[in-house]
Amino acid sequence: MHSSQSIERLVDLFASLPSIGRKTAQRLTFFMLRQSDEFNEQFSKAIIELKRNVRLCSVCFSYTESDPCPICSSTKRNKGLICVVEEPNDISTIEKTHDFNGLYHVLHGVINPLDGITQDDIKVKELIKRLSNVEEVILALNPNTEGELTTYYIAKLLNPLGVKVTKIASGVPMGSALEYTDEATISRALEGRIVI
Amino acid sequence: MHSSQSIERLVDLFASLPSIGRKTAQRLTFFMLRQSDEFNEQFSKAIIELKRNVRLCSVCFSYTESDPCPICSSTKRNKGLICVVEEPNDISTIEKTHDFNGLYHVLHGVINPLDGITQDDIKVKELIKRLSNVEEVILALNPNTEGELTTYYIAKLLNPLGVKVTKIASGVPMGSALEYTDEATISRALEGRIVI
Repeated sequence: MHSSQSIERLVDLFASLPSIGRKTAQRLTFFMLRQSDEFNEQFSKAIIELKRNVRLCSVCFSYTESDPCPICSSTKRNKGLICVVEEPNDISTIEKTHDFNGLYHVLHGVINPLDGITQDDIKVKELIKRLSNVEEVILALNPNTEGELTTYYIAKLLNPLGVKVTKIASGVPMGSALEYTDEATISRALEGRIVI
Repeated sequence: MHSSQSIERLVDLFASLPSIGRKTAQRLTFFMLRQSDEFNEQFSKAIIELKRNVRLCSVCFSYTESDPCPICSSTKRNKGLICVVEEPNDISTIEKTHDFNGLYHVLHGVINPLDGITQDDIKVKELIKRLSNVEEVILALNPNTEGELTTYYIAKLLNPLGVKVTKIASGVPMGSALEYTDEATISRALEGRIVI
């Protein structure tokens, strides 16, 4: 389409990223063409250094540059409490609340029978190995079919081991209106009602 | 926010690109972490090679790897016809129609008094130098205030030089409905009506 292979190549690469269509990929490539050499060199270097510097924490399986990660090696966190999440970026979402002071465990996925993803494909065994001296495991998976399935699978596995297993509440999001909330969420909000 | 500087750095860089917010930048960075080393090396290399290989065509000021660009040096194009566009990516939009067989001229911007961009900041002088043996100049700028202003400025400049100056039609887009078309567009469609 374009008169340059180098442009075409970068457009193809941008377009292969999630949520980036061909039009946006073109706009990004033309934007890069107008940037300084320094900016593009920095970008190029950041991509290479990403995988060179970042690894999985051998304890919680989050992304980290030091092993164990800063959270796992912190002396200020409550080591009796583990919050289980699907993906590493869920950790920063929870950290932003400043309401959780325990450790994390990243599953790297959820059980999904339709896609052939079983308990052996996610970090469940690794979670079980961490349970000595742990009082409570909070399951903070996404409230959809696969997340719920995985939540109940892990609860069934952990309950006989004498550890308290909880899951985060589903309900009407703060700031929204009942009128615009779907029935499944209202059902969960009723089911999870708390005494005030 | 994250436990890794390398992640943070690439998120910042992605977020500095147009139309990419912080959430998308995070998603893209985590996507890159899951790709093969080869993919990331290819991406990194494509960014560096972009500015190394791509230059402006000395005739039409489009992006090209060879100078003059393939369109300017083609023997099959009508050299008596020049289509003037704002940016290099407008060329591929017009080429897709297969309805234009002339040459192009990229202004690299439009006159915008509010932003202090004058005729001297865009490639107008360079256009005038190309006019020998040119029969018609088609102005294909975006139909907004700055595009219109630039269109009329160039027309006023070129008309005394004995070259035919035209601009592309504004009107109701194909496939859309009059009902949903704004008044300014309808006005232009009426003004530009053609005998059938």
